[in-house]
Amino acid sequence: MQQFLSVNDVADVSQLVEEAFLLKQNPWSHAHLGQGKTLGLVFFNPSLRTRLSTQKAAWHLGLHTLMMNINQEGWAIETRDGVVMDQAAGEHIKEAAGVFAQYCDLLGVRCFPSLVDREADYNETVMKKIALYSGRPLISLESATVHPLQSLADVMTIMEKRRRARPKVVLTWAPQVKALPQAVANSFAQWVLRTDCELVITHPPGYELNPSFTQGARIEHDQDRAFEGADFVYAKNWSAYEPYGAILSEDRSWTVSEEKMRRTRDGYFMHCLPVRRNLKVTDEVLDGPRSLVLNQALNRVYAAQVVLKRMLEHLR
Amino acid sequence: MQQFLSVNDVADVSQLVEEAFLLKQNPWSHAHLGQGKTLGLVFFNPSLRTRLSTQKAAWHLGLHTLMMNINQEGWAIETRDGVVMDQAAGEHIKEAAGVFAQYCDLLGVRCFPSLVDREADYNETVMKKIALYSGRPLISLESATVHPLQSLADVMTIMEKRRRARPKVVLTWAPQVKALPQAVANSFAQWVLRTDCELVITHPPGYELNPSFTQGARIEHDQDRAFEGADFVYAKNWSAYEPYGAILSEDRSWTVSEEKMRRTRDGYFMHCLPVRRNLKVTDEVLDGPRSLVLNQALNRVYAAQVVLKRMLEHLR
Amino acid sequence: MQQFLSVNDVADVSQLVEEAFLLKQNPWSHAHLGQGKTLGLVFFNPSLRTRLSTQKAAWHLGLHTLMMNINQEGWAIETRDGVVMDQAAGEHIKEAAGVFAQYCDLLGVRCFPSLVDREADYNETVMKKIALYSGRPLISLESATVHPLQSLADVMTIMEKRRRARPKVVLTWAPQVKALPQAVANSFAQWVLRTDCELVITHPPGYELNPSFTQGARIEHDQDRAFEGADFVYAKNWSAYEPYGAILSEDRSWTVSEEKMRRTRDGYFMHCLPVRRNLKVTDEVLDGPRSLVLNQALNRVYAAQVVLKRMLEHLR
Repeated sequence: MQQFLSVNDVADVSQLVEEAFLLKQNPWSHAHLGQGKTLGLVFFNPSLRTRLSTQKAAWHLGLHTLMMNINQEGWAIETRDGVVMDQAAGEHIKEAAGVFAQYCDLLGVRCFPSLVDREADYNETVMKKIALYSGRPLISLESATVHPLQSLADVMTIMEKRRRARPKVVLTWAPQVKALPQAVANSFAQWVLRTDCELVITHPPGYELNPSFTQGARIEHDQDRAFEGADFVYAKNWSAYEPYGAILSEDRSWTVSEEKMRRTRDGYFMHCLPVRRNLKVTDEVLDGPRSLVLNQALNRVYAAQVVLKRMLEHLR
Repeated sequence: MQQFLSVNDVADVSQLVEEAFLLKQNPWSHAHLGQGKTLGLVFFNPSLRTRLSTQKAAWHLGLHTLMMNINQEGWAIETRDGVVMDQAAGEHIKEAAGVFAQYCDLLGVRCFPSLVDREADYNETVMKKIALYSGRPLISLESATVHPLQSLADVMTIMEKRRRARPKVVLTWAPQVKALPQAVANSFAQWVLRTDCELVITHPPGYELNPSFTQGARIEHDQDRAFEGADFVYAKNWSAYEPYGAILSEDRSWTVSEEKMRRTRDGYFMHCLPVRRNLKVTDEVLDGPRSLVLNQALNRVYAAQVVLKRMLEHLR
Repeated sequence: MQQFLSVNDVADVSQLVEEAFLLKQNPWSHAHLGQGKTLGLVFFNPSLRTRLSTQKAAWHLGLHTLMMNINQEGWAIETRDGVVMDQAAGEHIKEAAGVFAQYCDLLGVRCFPSLVDREADYNETVMKKIALYSGRPLISLESATVHPLQSLADVMTIMEKRRRARPKVVLTWAPQVKALPQAVANSFAQWVLRTDCELVITHPPGYELNPSFTQGARIEHDQDRAFEGADFVYAKNWSAYEPYGAILSEDRSWTVSEEKMRRTRDGYFMHCLPVRRNLKVTDEVLDGPRSLVLNQALNRVYAAQVVLKRMLEHLR
């Protein structure tokens, strides 16, 4: 694997998942693969699970990790081309990426969308520029439009817990008070559609995701109907794709509750975390026996590890 | 040792201190004990000595350390139960603690008091929730009401420097311009009362600490009288327990000076640091030959190391 | 080497550069030299290259690194002597340095100038106090007046790329919108004057650097004339030495452009980074084949490594 920016960099999702399970069983099986190699982890935005799980995965592989909270420990970065840099930004992404490449064999980058300039966000301008200007194998730690390490961990969790060959997976929009990226939802849809699952996406009218990620899923505006017979309910908030970044609804009847979960086939509840309790999902569901949120969090380690392992194998 | 949240988790203080001295003599004696294990260090608040000394202790034991400045590198954490999370906090402590548990074998947490809600602070709500929801062996890196690693280092320092069997130890309130926690003072009292020392606590009237920490000590409102014949003077500011968090005095006649120290038995000066010079203590005392503040700081490494060692031994 | 605060701590610049090149060829040649030793890296100010390259150098030598962003992860530090600390600063540099010394065998410190109090800045008050109060071998990661690790990397880059025995090196002032330190410019001049180069410094009138750093260089106010026949053009902005910290000019005719570079002997372009594109230098020059900015960044690793190596050899 040369880069890991989305599911499109994965030839065979099932194979990747199987390999991740092998690492989960034996995390130290490739403890020397990364010896003498450096992984740079660059955060333009906050991170808890990604920050910790990726460091842990790197440690299992013997990699040396360099961390950088770029806006806090460095300075603001300019990402546009051709501008006269006489404003706040102190460094251009071209130099920043070029410098990371001098110090690191592999790079992981987290960079959220603007939610203002849709074209720039959906072109993955920042991530692509870092890939181009660094010339290094690059792992997305969540970009403007996708969060592939999360989705890989999510698919692992579904595979571990499914009770029938082709489970019904429901991705449901849930209320928030803040405009959030579409990345987790886009990415989840894209990955699940590459596995043997039935995918239904439910949200209030107007919250349609970019169809290039959701093509092949059934879209359902009636949340109750969507939940019928579901094996997995994956809750997530996202802001509108059109008008871009807008909050069209804060309708709390969309909060995932026990009552709603009763429509499922004794379905599991999933969420990528962080989650706002009693807004996106009730305490009862989140604290109940069918909540998989910590399983998902644990799988983040092995999702990161299998990707790092494949990249290291490619490097050699 | 299963947890280290206060002196109440220590069966025998003298034994713990002796074991810490052995590690100080030979820091690498258990260099492989932590191999393959991860220590998570979670900071809700600033830290210098604790941050560095605990990392160093972990390194001596072969532990892998994951650091997290949660409010700066992550987001604000909700600690109340049952709330609808539609305000600033992006994640609940229940998930945060649960996730740390997925990645770490041991946890260390620093979390200051609100100084507003005394009941929540003195119930150690946050620390207890992290212990409960993580299910991991937990080390306090200073909590709302105590700072046990500091107190262990302080007791070590007293044991190293005492010149008689039962030294007189004076904990004196000293002026500050900011409302500070009671944690260091509470904890120091509690630990010293578990050793063979005479403890006198002196402060302006109204600054009485919670008696559950100080029972057994003599309280003296006349600082001069308290200092008479002291072997050790430990200065610290704290805000009032009643009314909770209040600044009742900024009386600079309480600043520890050479003149005051002359009343002692050639007594040593101690402070946990950071210290505000010429407000809590004069330059002359702090820079003088009887100041032990750096000895205390050094002992922080071995205080942390002995606790980590015992927890690792319990894990195996 | 006992300290590395400026070129004055280097007996023979050529020898140091040669040794750095050996490490660049074989970074792991002294992989065990730092075993069991701790390097503390203390940042009072932002850092990207220094932060990453110094950690990487330390790793090559087997050193354990402790990082501290002191103002963000700790608190504000008082640097003046004798003050009553009843304002914002929570800890005095004397204690902070003393504590670092308890935990670290070597220290690296980054601390920018005030650009307000010239005497304090040019006395290197902060760096000298840390050296004094810590008593540890100290490496400047950029101080108020110099940036010696950068300059060593710059000299390495010149030595790698020079095409004649005594190249002409031009240090040119370039426009900025913010008042910047004189450190990189001072230091570059001071180091280049210790090598076999011809040094010309060009800037608008009034931007004269402190002569103790530039004595021996030719000062030229006509940028075009300065560029004639140059082998290397090193661009940097700095604020005025007199009146101290002032912005005397934002004249964008000083921006380094292809047209200007045509006056050189097919000269290389250098900058320490971060650089503001199209303000200090045009895209065309920075992206062109004669730009050495990434070469300089890479050499930062081996500049740090050779200094750490010499200090470790001195410690043993």
